[in-house]
Formats: sequence, C-alpha cells, structure tokens
Amino acid sequence: MNACSSCKSCSNGPCKITPKSPRGVCGADAHTIVARNFLRAVAAGSGCYIHIVENTARNLKNTALNRKTIKGLNALDRLAQAFDIKETDTYEKAIKVADKVLSDLYKPSYEKMDLVEKISYSPRYDKWKELNLIPGGAKSEVFDAVVKTSTNLSSDASDMLLHSLKLGISTGLYGLMLTNILNDIILGEPVIRKAPVGFRVIDPEYINIMITGHQHSNLAHLQKVLIEHDVVKKAKAIGAKGFKIVGCTCVGQDLQVRGEHYQDIYSGHVGNNFTSEAVLATGAVDLVISEFNCTIPGIEPIANEFMIKMICIDDVAKKTNAELLPYRYEEREQISEYIINTAIESYKSRRQSVKINYPKDHGDSNVITGLSEVSLKDFLGGDWSKLIELIVNGKIKGIAGVVGCSNLTAKGHDVFTVELVKELIKKDILVLSAGCSSGALENVGLMSPDAALLAGDGLRSVCETLGIPPVLNFGPCLAIGRLEIVASQIAEAIGVDIPKLPLVFSAPQWLEEQALADGAFGLSLGIPLHLAIPPFITGSDLVTKLLTEDLKNITGGYLILDSDVESTAKKLEDIIMEKRNGLKI
Amino acid sequence: MNACSSCKSCSNGPCKITPKSPRGVCGADAHTIVARNFLRAVAAGSGCYIHIVENTARNLKNTALNRKTIKGLNALDRLAQAFDIKETDTYEKAIKVADKVLSDLYKPSYEKMDLVEKISYSPRYDKWKELNLIPGGAKSEVFDAVVKTSTNLSSDASDMLLHSLKLGISTGLYGLMLTNILNDIILGEPVIRKAPVGFRVIDPEYINIMITGHQHSNLAHLQKVLIEHDVVKKAKAIGAKGFKIVGCTCVGQDLQVRGEHYQDIYSGHVGNNFTSEAVLATGAVDLVISEFNCTIPGIEPIANEFMIKMICIDDVAKKTNAELLPYRYEEREQISEYIINTAIESYKSRRQSVKINYPKDHGDSNVITGLSEVSLKDFLGGDWSKLIELIVNGKIKGIAGVVGCSNLTAKGHDVFTVELVKELIKKDILVLSAGCSSGALENVGLMSPDAALLAGDGLRSVCETLGIPPVLNFGPCLAIGRLEIVASQIAEAIGVDIPKLPLVFSAPQWLEEQALADGAFGLSLGIPLHLAIPPFITGSDLVTKLLTEDLKNITGGYLILDSDVESTAKKLEDIIMEKRNGLKI
Repeated sequence: MNACSSCKSCSNGPCKITPKSPRGVCGADAHTIVARNFLRAVAAGSGCYIHIVENTARNLKNTALNRKTIKGLNALDRLAQAFDIKETDTYEKAIKVADKVLSDLYKPSYEKMDLVEKISYSPRYDKWKELNLIPGGAKSEVFDAVVKTSTNLSSDASDMLLHSLKLGISTGLYGLMLTNILNDIILGEPVIRKAPVGFRVIDPEYINIMITGHQHSNLAHLQKVLIEHDVVKKAKAIGAKGFKIVGCTCVGQDLQVRGEHYQDIYSGHVGNNFTSEAVLATGAVDLVISEFNCTIPGIEPIANEFMIKMICIDDVAKKTNAELLPYRYEEREQISEYIINTAIESYKSRRQSVKINYPKDHGDSNVITGLSEVSLKDFLGGDWSKLIELIVNGKIKGIAGVVGCSNLTAKGHDVFTVELVKELIKKDILVLSAGCSSGALENVGLMSPDAALLAGDGLRSVCETLGIPPVLNFGPCLAIGRLEIVASQIAEAIGVDIPKLPLVFSAPQWLEEQALADGAFGLSLGIPLHLAIPPFITGSDLVTKLLTEDLKNITGGYLILDSDVESTAKKLEDIIMEKRNGLKI
Repeated sequence: MNACSSCKSCSNGPCKITPKSPRGVCGADAHTIVARNFLRAVAAGSGCYIHIVENTARNLKNTALNRKTIKGLNALDRLAQAFDIKETDTYEKAIKVADKVLSDLYKPSYEKMDLVEKISYSPRYDKWKELNLIPGGAKSEVFDAVVKTSTNLSSDASDMLLHSLKLGISTGLYGLMLTNILNDIILGEPVIRKAPVGFRVIDPEYINIMITGHQHSNLAHLQKVLIEHDVVKKAKAIGAKGFKIVGCTCVGQDLQVRGEHYQDIYSGHVGNNFTSEAVLATGAVDLVISEFNCTIPGIEPIANEFMIKMICIDDVAKKTNAELLPYRYEEREQISEYIINTAIESYKSRRQSVKINYPKDHGDSNVITGLSEVSLKDFLGGDWSKLIELIVNGKIKGIAGVVGCSNLTAKGHDVFTVELVKELIKKDILVLSAGCSSGALENVGLMSPDAALLAGDGLRSVCETLGIPPVLNFGPCLAIGRLEIVASQIAEAIGVDIPKLPLVFSAPQWLEEQALADGAFGLSLGIPLHLAIPPFITGSDLVTKLLTEDLKNITGGYLILDSDVESTAKKLEDIIMEKRNGLKI
C-alpha cells in the first residue's frame, strides 16, 4: 500500500512514521512528510507540463519568425483575442501570443502571471484570488515548491497543499489548456472523423516509426518531410512503401485527434503507455522517437531484442539505449534527415532477421476522434444549449471526465478504467476522456458509435440520434485542458460556477507525477475527483481529511478514494444527482 | 543502510530492486532509480542555494535603489571588476552587479549564464566547457533536473550524473560564492577577531531572539533597529537590558563571521542545526525567527513547551506553529516593528513562568572567527606565498576542507567531524571549515589558538608562530564557496589546475539535500570528497563506480565513502601525499 508516511530525504533516514514513532529524526511528523512528498510530486508533474508548453510556445514563435505555415488560423485568432492582442499580421500575432506565454512562464514567483485572468472562467478566478492561489511565474512556482519540500524547510502541511493547488492552476491553464491551443495553431485544429485504432493500424510494408511523448510540435517538421516525394522514394528504393508514424502514448493521441491533417503519414493510434512494449514486440517497428514521458524504460530491452533503433529528441527524456539528438527548431532539417536515414538503415538491417507477428484484428476500426472544445461545440450546433437541454431533461444525467494514465495495478492494465466507464454510461452519464485512459477505451470499442448499445436508455437515445459514442475521445492527457474549457463554457452558459455542475472527474488508473498535477487543477477548479489508488496521502489523516473533505468547502473540489468499480460509479452518480438537485433539475 | 535502489515515484510502486527482481514495474533498473533519486536530491539542494542567492541579490538591488548604506564597498568594487562593470556611482554599480546575477539566474537552460566564465578559475572553466557542463540559467537547470527525474522520463544514469555536476557548478558559483560576496557588500566583510561561542553566549537578561536559516541579508534591517535607542527603551521598560540575537545554524555563523560589525546586537553563535533544540530548552530564548533551513521540525514542540513564539519570514520555510510574515524589502520597517513587539509580548508573557537553565561554561571563549578569502589572505601578508611556502616545506602537509552539516548518525551528533579533524591536524593537515561542522569544531575548542597543541609538530609550529588555530572557521556552509575561492587562488598562484593541489574535502556528517549540491560542486572542481555516509548511491554499482572511480578521470574529483575515522584520515593523507608527489614537493 502507498500509505507512504516515510521519508528518505536526508542522511539521518530513512524514517518511517508509526504509532510508536510519530516523528522522524528531524522531528517531522506524518503530516509534514506526506504533504512534502505530495507537493514535490505535484511540482515535478507541473514541471513536466510547463516544459511541454514552453517548448510548444517556442515552436510557435520560431515557426512564425521563419514565416512557415501556420495551420490553425482560427485558433490563433481566438487566442490572440483572449490575450488582448490587436495585431493583424498573422506572423506578428503568433509571435506575440508565444511571447506572452513565455514571458509568464519565466516570471519570478513574486510576480503574478498576466494571462491567468484572461484565460480563466471569471468566478473561478475570483475564488482563486480570494484564496491567494493566483500563481506567480509557472517555472518559479515549481522551483519554489521543490525548495519548500527540501530537508528542514517547510513543515506546514496546509501551506504545502495550498501550494499544490496553485501549481494545479498554472499546470492546468498553461501546461494543459494553452498547450492544446498552441498546438492547434501550429499543427491544425482537431476535426471530428472516424479512425481505426489498435494493432490493426500497423502496416509492416512501411518503414514504421513509433512515437512516444507529449510534445507533438517537435515532430511537426518530420511529419511533413516523411511524405515528401524524395523521401518516399528512398523508402521505396529499399522495398518499403514509404514511412508511417505509429502512435503510442499522448503524442500519438494528439496526432490522432488532428488526424484529418495527417492522413498520409499517420497509421493511427495503437495504444497507451504500457501498450508500447507490446507494439515493439510485434517486430514491425523500425525506429522509436521519444520526446517525453510516458516512454517507459521497459521498452529498452525489447528494442534491443528486436533490433529497433531508439532516438530521443529531448534530453529530459533520454533513454539509456537511445541516441540523443536534441530537437532545436533551427536544426530541424538536419534532425529530420538524420532520423530518416537512421530509419532506413534500421529497416534494412533488421527486417530480414526479425519476425513480424501481431494481432491484426486488435482494436477498433470505427473510433470517433477529433474532438475538441471547438469541434464538439460546432458539432452540437455552435453552442452548448443542446447538451445543456439533454442534461436538464435528464437524458444525460451528468458528465464524467474519465482521464489520466493507465497503470498495472487497480485490477490490471486499463481494467478499472474500462469497467468504470461501462458502469457510468449504463447510468446515463456521458463520459469524456483524455490521456492514456482514452487509449484503453477506444481499443475496446467504447469510443465507437456502436457502444451506444452499452449505455442506459437516455444516453443511448442521445448517442443514436447524434451518431456518437457514449464516450467521447479528446485525445492526449493535455486535452484534460480541453475538457476543462468545456466545463467552464457550460458553467458560463448556465450562469453558475464550476462546482455547481453535474460533473465529476475520475483518473482511476493514474500513474505519473504529471497526473497529480492534473488532479491538482481539477481540485482547484472545484471538481470532485476520484482516484482508485490514493496519491500517497493516507499516511496522514490530516492531509487525507483536507483533500477528501475540507477542500470541498474551500475550492469545491475534493478527492474520492475508492478502489471498487461499482461503489465508485455509485458515488459519482450520487454526486451528480446531488449537483442536479442543487441546480433544481 | 541507505542503499536506496527503491522507487516510490508512481502509483505502480513502490518498487524495490533486488537481485531476483532487477527492474521496477516500469522497467527502470537500479542505475536509473539511483541516479534519478540522486539528481532530484541535488536539484533540490541546488534550488535551495539558488533561492538564497536570488533573495540576496534582490536585497542588494533594493538597498541600492533606496540609497541605503552599503557596508562592503571593497567587496562591491572587486565584484564589479570581475563582472566588467565600469560604473563609478556606488549605487548604480550595486544595482548592475545585482542585475547581472538575477539575469543569469532567470535565463532559460538553453542559454548559458554570462558570469560563469568571469568568476571561474580558467583551467576549470575550460574543463567544464570541454565536458559540456557549463550551466544554462540556474533556476531552469534545477527545473529541468526535476522534469528529467520524473516518472518515465530519463533512464540514463550517466546523463543524470553529468546534470548533477552541472548543477554543482551553478550552485557553487552562484549559490555559494556569490552569496557570500553579495552579503559582504550588504552586511560588511568579515574581519578576523576572537569571539565566544556555545551556550555561554546566552544572556538571559536580554530579550533573546534565536535565528535559524541561511539568508542573513533578510535580517539586515532588524539587526539595525534592535539596537536603536527607542527600541532598547521598549525592552528596558519591561525589565530587560535590550535585545540580543542568538545565533544558530548557518545564518548564525554568517553573523559570527561578520561579528566585527554587529558586536552590540549579536550574542554569538550557540550551535548548529540539532543544537537549536537544546538552545530553546534553555528557556532563555523568547522568539525564533527562521528564514530557511536548517530549521528542524524538532524545535516546534520545544517552542510550544517553552512558550516561545515562532515567526517565519520566508514561506518556503514555514513551520507549522510559526506565524508567517514573508520578508519583503519594501515592508522591512513594519516587519521589524512587528517582530520587536512580538518579542516583547513573548518576553512579558513567558519569563515569569519558564525556568531558565543552561550550562554557562559550554563552548569556548576564544574562537578565531572572521575568516574569508580576503581576510585570510590579508592576514598572511596580502598573497598566498607564505601559505604555499609552508606547504612546500612540509610544515603543512596539505589542506582539508571539513565542511557541511551535522547529523545524528555517523557516530552521533558531530562526533565523526570532531574526531576526523583531530586526526587530520595530528597529521599536519590544516583544516578549513564551513557549515554546521564549524559549529561543532568551535564549541569543542578546535578553532581556538590553544588547539595548536593538538596538531602535529609542523602544523603546531605554524599555528604558534602565527597565533592561529589549526582549524580555520569560515562560517556558514555558504562559505564553502570561500574555501573554493581560496583553492582557486592558490592553484593560480602555483600555476596548476585544482585537482593537482594537496587538497581534500570531507563533508563527513552531511545531512541535507543542499549538502549534495555542495558536494557536486566539489566534484566539478576536481576535489576528492569524503563522506562518512553514502549519498544514497550504493544501490547501483554503476553509479557508485562512476562517482568513486571514473569521475577521477573526468573532472579530477571523486567520492571517498568511509565510515571509519582513522581509515578516512589515512586515505585523505594518502591523497595529499600523492598530490604532493605530483607537484614534486
């Protein structure tokens, strides 16, 4: 169990808190230790997302400075408007948008970030201000949290939990929400469409490059050149049909959601974090390009066994057996060329000796993808009134965001996630998903229109009428930010604050530190959040009570810890019913 | 034991690496896990020191912007010269110095810091450049390390250890070296003098304020006003003689080293980190002001028991039972006033009910303090030739920096430190000390001239001739940076690189994450570094070999792990003899 009231931060330790030994050598009690471990994990997770948005903003800026194609002009306009940028030239506008983001990220912690108010739902902004939770510079807030949790610094559990919420806000607004929109500008906005997923998308006749990570814009140039005539010719010269990118983890999800723009190069999404091991074991992948987590070290021996070359394009995600080729915009041509040549060499050297073997019917061919806060609203007629009406009339009881990672505990790989979602849709709760959880839900068919049959009568009729599945796929974990835009817009349309909505979140099989930072955003937003595995807090009754009970009266959000599927579904339904009562619907 | 090849970063864990189970659930092996834990600890330690130098630079800038007294004009001139600042106006010069530091700290990791080359010993700078170790912006380097060590990001142990060395460089040059000099400018340079130390300095007839932390400049205003006529009058009105600051931990050491300028307000240094518990238990302290570590949580119940009010002036160091009053330069008047009034109230409310009881003969009355790279050189005649001559002729065999924390393991509080130093001086090795180790060494008399009697014949004659002790006290752990300036200047005078010097370091009883960042600087500088307790690396033979053996051929520095005093002293002596042979002396 992850009770985790132990500390190994200093040379006097490790110390383990027990009833007979309530303090560590330094005097820290369970509350200090638990809050410190929790804040440090949230800080690391926040750091990950802030790293992603920083690189994404830099890529936008460099694209604009070099006058290269900007694919999402509408997204650019919307963001420029939100930021109060009046510029008319597209490139200048893009530069200013990127600069505003970068400038906020690099502010000291004692200077508030400018964009927070501009991109928050205003009742939430007011609540955060009241609670003194408006973050200073996002990188400095992470930095301060790391300092605060160092040995013999803070011992104040409440202060550390509030700092976690502040990090949740900077993570959510910048790392999640803004990353999506900056990617929309660089890479093109999601368009709703059908797509195949799972191992079935692998085509061994191509030179296959598996991608893992979270920083899609670092692959923008490669995606473009891999389908250029001269490059395809190189592939054909060695007997392949060309190149295909095989999606794994969140960057694969991000490609899938923007798949409309990448039909020639993208095979499709095969699976989530732990699925990547099996994907390599098919033998059909010739090269792995990783640029962030969740690139699990477990793929390394498999890549070695199957003679798969690994290239890592961001040093923070360096794998032991990978070649490091740090992505820099100004070197994108050489980097792409090197990757192409390496993939060709790998294909040539391995295809004769490695057996390819994979389940060709794995996954689903009919997944609905391409959802975003924009594409979904457009699909529903340009505003949220139809969805609100369906909620008011009870056909849809409420909404559950089932998001986050996949892990190997909580009943096994993806098991809790899939079972919980089946229970929720049976109860007429519409499920929105983002993250590795989506990888699971689409592979088992829950994101295909036929899954309407598994929903309760109300939700089923809605799905059948609209031709949608009962589980809507927003893509990568970054798109949790999109779900939260949807929540804000619905709240605004109704005229209430977010905690009043019949909306719950669950990250049942959370795995990473990043998930804890996501979760902190959910809690800051005032959303009830279920986890099947406690986030290392149960060693302190004070911290547990604060996050599972007291916080309800502070931000409106709180944690629900439950490792049983049916009881979780029941609790989430009860919360939704309670919120409906609150809204008198 | 701290073998520590276990990981509890994700929800799949905790995972423990054993011979039968060589990888965690994600596939991480012992090398990845150990390097990741190590780098994250170094990053946190680096963050702590960078936080300190940032606040110190801000205090200098604010002091200059407000045209307040700048006490260390010579230090300012030296630093301005090193930074190539031509400005003649004192305040403008100080502002530019501070801005150069702050600007470097906030650079992205992909931009190198400007001052590194200017403040490094040039053969070292060249070596670091060759090894690609020149740090980018110090805060971003910490940030990147935190991201790199997050779940399913880097698995490359070598890369993570090199990142640790890079953090060592930014920590050492900025967090250590520059903090001292910025403090010299704000607070006045150290002047060599004799001072009493230990419990004997406590005078119960005053209102006693114990300070703990590392950020002396945050107390500058308070120190000034506590001895102003009106304030003393307030103390006298309630029966006290006035106010006294009682030093504990590094900020106390920093006051001691600058004691020449603070004789009226400073009682003296009582002791180090764990001593602070006993200081409060004397009953004579009325208020604790903490501004950083090492403020151990263990003082909280003691403060409660003895009715001692606690105020914390930096939120990163918030203690559960302390009132938070974050120091901001512009609010210094109100903050000092609040502290004074609180101390008066505390004195009034507690002195009648709390018994005061302390050992009045504890410590030493004859400690030599006030050493810095400048004051020591001046004392020796303005250059290092005399010291070099004593080393060449063998009266002094070599130099050992015995530095860092104090812990409760390694034979008990301060035991290893004191015993090791006794062995070293017996072998004619001159000891320089900085950090909580100094607190131990001065309390037991090793920093008083009489301690010459404990030294070997050569060192004893040197000490007796010069009237100095065989253990020289540079003050706070920050002053490890001063020792490293001394080392660089001696190397320069001889015309060799640092690894050639008959110089070793030991942080025998290291405790904190900060100590690991200090150590990483020592290793980058090419200095052999002993630790009595392994820094959580022994769970990986690869990491252990890299740091204890391979690094010798990379930077010249390496770790020596030994928990036995005599064998450590012998090893350090052997290294010094080997280096003497190398220099043909």
